[in-house]
Amino acid sequence: MRGVVMHAPGDIRVEARDDPKILYPTDAIIRLSATCICGSDLWPYRGIEPVTEPTPMGHEYVGVVEQLGSEVKHIRVGDFVVGSFFASDNTCAICQAGYQSRCVHAELIGAIGTQAQLARIPLADGTLVATPGMPALDLIPSLLAASDVLGTGWFAAVAAEAGPGKTVAVVGDGAVGLLGVLAAKQLGAARIVIFSRHADRQQLAVEFGATDVIPERGDAGVAKLKELTGGLGAHSTIEAVGTQESMLQAIRSTRPGGHVGYVGVAHDVRLPGDELFFAEVHLHGGPAPVRRFLPELLRLICERRINPGKVFDLELPMEQAAEGYKAMDERRAIKVLLTL
Amino acid sequence: MRGVVMHAPGDIRVEARDDPKILYPTDAIIRLSATCICGSDLWPYRGIEPVTEPTPMGHEYVGVVEQLGSEVKHIRVGDFVVGSFFASDNTCAICQAGYQSRCVHAELIGAIGTQAQLARIPLADGTLVATPGMPALDLIPSLLAASDVLGTGWFAAVAAEAGPGKTVAVVGDGAVGLLGVLAAKQLGAARIVIFSRHADRQQLAVEFGATDVIPERGDAGVAKLKELTGGLGAHSTIEAVGTQESMLQAIRSTRPGGHVGYVGVAHDVRLPGDELFFAEVHLHGGPAPVRRFLPELLRLICERRINPGKVFDLELPMEQAAEGYKAMDERRAIKVLLTL
Repeated sequence: MRGVVMHAPGDIRVEARDDPKILYPTDAIIRLSATCICGSDLWPYRGIEPVTEPTPMGHEYVGVVEQLGSEVKHIRVGDFVVGSFFASDNTCAICQAGYQSRCVHAELIGAIGTQAQLARIPLADGTLVATPGMPALDLIPSLLAASDVLGTGWFAAVAAEAGPGKTVAVVGDGAVGLLGVLAAKQLGAARIVIFSRHADRQQLAVEFGATDVIPERGDAGVAKLKELTGGLGAHSTIEAVGTQESMLQAIRSTRPGGHVGYVGVAHDVRLPGDELFFAEVHLHGGPAPVRRFLPELLRLICERRINPGKVFDLELPMEQAAEGYKAMDERRAIKVLLTL
Repeated sequence: MRGVVMHAPGDIRVEARDDPKILYPTDAIIRLSATCICGSDLWPYRGIEPVTEPTPMGHEYVGVVEQLGSEVKHIRVGDFVVGSFFASDNTCAICQAGYQSRCVHAELIGAIGTQAQLARIPLADGTLVATPGMPALDLIPSLLAASDVLGTGWFAAVAAEAGPGKTVAVVGDGAVGLLGVLAAKQLGAARIVIFSRHADRQQLAVEFGATDVIPERGDAGVAKLKELTGGLGAHSTIEAVGTQESMLQAIRSTRPGGHVGYVGVAHDVRLPGDELFFAEVHLHGGPAPVRRFLPELLRLICERRINPGKVFDLELPMEQAAEGYKAMDERRAIKVLLTL
């Protein structure tokens, strides 16, 4: 099969890879219908995370089941399935509490590399959710978004306790932040304020439900938000970047007793304990337990009540993945879908 | 009047101070029935917080109202009252959300100094809660505990979402940690594990409801806790120290999706973002909004359903405050009550 491999920062190649095989009786092999590039793929692309050897890329996936291990009971060959970037058994105490991304048997799909024609998905029964029948082709981008960016934005909104009557602030205008806006809107937030200085992202944010846009960042952005909220700050803040500056902006944007939901993968963050103490916010986040939300998200997508696939503003054949990475790195694209 | 003044680290004197006066029409003057020394008073005593000038000490108080400003409506002269270490209006949006310690008009009682015969309490209507009639003398230690250590331990337990079916871990065996145990028990926790290596504190913890004691600290303590919890860690962890080591111990003691309630005043804490991200716990804490809990705590105390006053294991006349500080500093006493 063909797949995307990163050889070094900035060096993306599409090349022949071995077809995946069933390794464990709980595995499934799926043929991907589409795949995509994640904002978190840019960390190694930019050399911020090391690339020590040629690395198959990708952790987002939708597709059709081709083969199953002997112990898989609920997923069938021919099912159209969506899964998360963590495989999970969905039965352990941690999964049952809704934290499938920290399942006691969790496996990182990133180690498998789903920017490829085929992929082996471990723990198929726990990991995969099948759609009712084969979805319409135009739903595939949205279903693919559910695999990570929508699920992650949704978790951030839930962790931030976005809901009726709440003012929600969103730090980060990438695909996750934008889908955090969509999630907050679906969860009934009264007001949704996004920090963004990019016209295309501002426009999509408004389409997804943002009521206010603040172009300023850092403490200047916080000051603007306070002006909008009677000096108090947001009830709920979604953090979707993962830097020291964005985390502090999120914490400072939130009123005492409010909630910060953070999903940007943390890089060089050191939270000052004294500031956190006196901020008196709730802080919750981490790798999103997307599996918790998949049944609901698939329902909303299949009923065409949400259209998260709009975050894909560039579509390329997988063979042109290198151009896709470049476009995201240079912020010419919010998120790139790779066709197969 | 007489009051306790810290002149420098380790230099505690009891001396004449001016009687407090009504400064604002919302003030009350109370005559203290008892006062006490807080673990947080040890930070400046030990020189970890600077003492730049002679500083009146104390922020915990119970007593009888002697004078009221002209705008006080609900508190009356002669009431026996308890208040928190933050004065609060109890009407702003932040107070109404239960975060009176971050009231938009919050005033720190520590700046007033309640280790004294009299004290001016700002925002009396919002800050003070009166008992139904004059309490029995033997209830005074418990009512005084409600002013800070009980209220703080209770907030930590609530922030940690201690409750039925939960395993609660407690980091810190000072008065706040011990009363965190009591709170977790009252909130219905199934199992309460305290980290403690001091026999007297272990004994009181067990009396308050601890089911297990772990003498190890740091990662060795975490490993023991994991053994007790099927490898998963606690559902809820109370952090009542405020150091880097104690915060990390609390985070590492908590299972993914679990809750850390932290109330130890943070000193030189820098939380590593990547560890926090992958820990996937809920983190909430800060200066306890004791006022939120006072009505319930006073009811439990007056009905003699809880006896938090047991944390006072040394009682001295206020004139001997210096000996009280020394006893707490040397860990000869858990908490010192000063009689007047």
